[in-house]
Amino acid sequence: MNYRMMGKFIYRILILEGLFMIPALLISIYHRESHAVGGFVSSLLAIGIIVYLLYVFCKDAPSGFYAKEGLACVGISWITMGLLGCLPFYFSREIPSYIDGFFEIVSGFTTTGSSIVPEVEKLSMGILYWRSFSHWVGGMGVLVFLLAISSVDKRSSGYTMHLLRAESPGPDVGKLVPKIRQTAKILYMIYIALTLLDIFFLVIGKMPVFDAICTAFGTAGTGGFGIKNNSIAGYSPYLQNVCTIFMLLFGVNFSCYYLLLMKQFKNVWKDEELRLYLGIVLGSILLIMWNIRGFYGTLEETARHAAFQVSSIVTTTGFATTDFDLWPPFSKAILLCLMLVGACAGSTGGGFKMGRLLFMLKNLRRNILQILHPRKVQAVRNNNRIVQERVLDNVNAYLAAYVMIVVLSFIIISADGFSITTNISAVLACFNNIGPGFDAVGPTCNFSAYSALSKLVLILDMLAGRLEIFPILVLFSGDTWKR
Amino acid sequence: MNYRMMGKFIYRILILEGLFMIPALLISIYHRESHAVGGFVSSLLAIGIIVYLLYVFCKDAPSGFYAKEGLACVGISWITMGLLGCLPFYFSREIPSYIDGFFEIVSGFTTTGSSIVPEVEKLSMGILYWRSFSHWVGGMGVLVFLLAISSVDKRSSGYTMHLLRAESPGPDVGKLVPKIRQTAKILYMIYIALTLLDIFFLVIGKMPVFDAICTAFGTAGTGGFGIKNNSIAGYSPYLQNVCTIFMLLFGVNFSCYYLLLMKQFKNVWKDEELRLYLGIVLGSILLIMWNIRGFYGTLEETARHAAFQVSSIVTTTGFATTDFDLWPPFSKAILLCLMLVGACAGSTGGGFKMGRLLFMLKNLRRNILQILHPRKVQAVRNNNRIVQERVLDNVNAYLAAYVMIVVLSFIIISADGFSITTNISAVLACFNNIGPGFDAVGPTCNFSAYSALSKLVLILDMLAGRLEIFPILVLFSGDTWKR
Repeated sequence: MNYRMMGKFIYRILILEGLFMIPALLISIYHRESHAVGGFVSSLLAIGIIVYLLYVFCKDAPSGFYAKEGLACVGISWITMGLLGCLPFYFSREIPSYIDGFFEIVSGFTTTGSSIVPEVEKLSMGILYWRSFSHWVGGMGVLVFLLAISSVDKRSSGYTMHLLRAESPGPDVGKLVPKIRQTAKILYMIYIALTLLDIFFLVIGKMPVFDAICTAFGTAGTGGFGIKNNSIAGYSPYLQNVCTIFMLLFGVNFSCYYLLLMKQFKNVWKDEELRLYLGIVLGSILLIMWNIRGFYGTLEETARHAAFQVSSIVTTTGFATTDFDLWPPFSKAILLCLMLVGACAGSTGGGFKMGRLLFMLKNLRRNILQILHPRKVQAVRNNNRIVQERVLDNVNAYLAAYVMIVVLSFIIISADGFSITTNISAVLACFNNIGPGFDAVGPTCNFSAYSALSKLVLILDMLAGRLEIFPILVLFSGDTWKR
Repeated sequence: MNYRMMGKFIYRILILEGLFMIPALLISIYHRESHAVGGFVSSLLAIGIIVYLLYVFCKDAPSGFYAKEGLACVGISWITMGLLGCLPFYFSREIPSYIDGFFEIVSGFTTTGSSIVPEVEKLSMGILYWRSFSHWVGGMGVLVFLLAISSVDKRSSGYTMHLLRAESPGPDVGKLVPKIRQTAKILYMIYIALTLLDIFFLVIGKMPVFDAICTAFGTAGTGGFGIKNNSIAGYSPYLQNVCTIFMLLFGVNFSCYYLLLMKQFKNVWKDEELRLYLGIVLGSILLIMWNIRGFYGTLEETARHAAFQVSSIVTTTGFATTDFDLWPPFSKAILLCLMLVGACAGSTGGGFKMGRLLFMLKNLRRNILQILHPRKVQAVRNNNRIVQERVLDNVNAYLAAYVMIVVLSFIIISADGFSITTNISAVLACFNNIGPGFDAVGPTCNFSAYSALSKLVLILDMLAGRLEIFPILVLFSGDTWKR
């Protein structure tokens, strides 16, 4: 591991983080929130000092690294972003405990949306904005952003591909166009366009502009931090439906949007992952509507709440319009299983991903066919292309790592004494970057009651979930730290 | 699918099942239990008629079949054994509902031990014996028994290997000795010897002989049906400790005992699966002892209950000496995770199996190393031998199938309206052939409250768990039923 190379990489990320804080600072100044202004200024100073020190010691390090260093670097820079990104919460005293603030901002960057704040309406505007913005930039990825704006020389194009792979969700990240910088740019262009569209539809539905921006950030990143204590429940049915539609849109693989722009409508229509995603969403909504009939006054209300909650959970956003912890067990079981799956690969959503589920099912089917016909050689196909064995093996390893991490985290946080349902759903909600769980971490509750150790475990879960496990897992491998 | 071939196979299994019922009938006659005697006689008549019909129609069918037919045959014959094995319960009116009786006997044959009987002490001796004996024969396998006693001609040795594979637990079933019939015989010899030893130690601890035999059957098959309402809680500490030790012994891969007989002590000592098994057992006992300190009067009592429950759950037996549903969440979390893993491959225990866990962890480690060093080719080794990629792929497909089945079953049985904890633990307890779960299916409760549909789902789960998924899964593949 070349530490100076890593330092050089990290100070560039931290400069970006500092720049991202400035709009939040301006909002605080405009609203005369003295504590928040103080918090942001002190944080910017602290970040500035660290950037300067890293710059002095690491500026001469060579660029470009191997797969191993790339992965570890992604893990470390996300942890660093969290450690420094929570300083405004801490310095402004709006979240007095450092570990709570760390939890909150990691929950933001990883687009989880689990909160330790009991009453978000007490937070200042600047802090609320920073909290929501962390979703937006975390959704598509800070490193992808860096790639999009920085000039990449030819020598390091291999290394940037490693970074893109590490930060982009999904089993098989391809480039949209041959040049990696172009790919990153296109992704962010689509992302910005969709976010603006979301804000537009919210504002014409008479949502205040500040609310609309923050809500759109939470939707775009599939994050789920709301700026109201009751999440989205207080807004009009029209606004709730806009959120439902945009949550679903941000759960789609962004390469589908690129194909739409390229007018390849047929390829989008035939995309197997997209079909699986829409099928699961529709099926879940109908089953839940049937199960909760009679819970709400009208069919419209039933459909609206069912569609909203399903979209919120499957895309791992975590907004809520109703307390789904009060729904009957069958509906809760469906939501719990949707938590496991998550959205499409290549979207801003978290979880295991529809694409992996598809590959897993196809691989399982192949195994059964191979048992039935031992002499026939079978290949797994997706969208009529043969899937490489390496990719399938990686999906399987991912599932194994997924199960291991869930089980270990579950055991550790159980020491705090909460119920089995609370603990399982807390781990799933954090690891799959969803936000709320059930029981003591349900949509009307928060994570503040957990011990510091449990919070650290859940923070690692959130990071492992957002970065698709391996960039965090390699940090625990002795092999990574060898010189 | 050659149906007449299948019929020929099934009537031989049913003859065995009828023979196995005779000791239970004799016990009922001896104790003058008229209802039970009537039940067994009618059942034997019914089985006799079915065997006769199958014999007439299928006796000329050729023997020997392909992998596909072998697997399907195993699945079908276990279902048939269940459908007819429950007749004594039904005809004697001791379990008045046929579906409940079906659940009970499948729970017996699959060595699950989940019960729908609220008060087992009300059952007659003959029925209690039949219930416990189903564990014993189901533990090592009826087909393996058939192989051990029947003469196998050379032509069909390939097909018998398929059968042994399908019914024996574990990812990589090998033959102990070149001849398959010898292997089956050796397995049953070790099994009988260990069972007799268990009975011996129970009887010298002053357990009544009938109790000792039934308890040993439940222990040997890692089943868990008790003959007392409070399972093993009423017996002396000595007897409880004997059970603990024998549960652990029956959870060990039987090839280890064969190696011991061959005096290959070093290979046993170095067996990686055995080490993992003992390590997990010991670790869990210590963690639970620490967690439940103060629950019981003395350290001895704490250690005894912790060791008993850990052994009972990890070997998927399901006996209980205390209501572990009252233990704190941390202990329950550990037990829940032990439910997931199960005992060693090649033992009578169920679950995912230690061997698969080992392969899964090693494959995960290889994947991480491959990410760190993309150009290095790595093989997975177990006990210093390279594990075939086919085996690893199968372990992965097994994990995928495991997760899918758990998730689907969980959703379906959730429609009955029980709590999330109840439903998750019910599925895990049945699928992993353990017996009791938590909450409404905890060690002091039973499964009778579930609907018929849920019971059918749980029955399929028990069968899929015992037969390691694929023999049941192929029954749902259209490909299997093609001529």
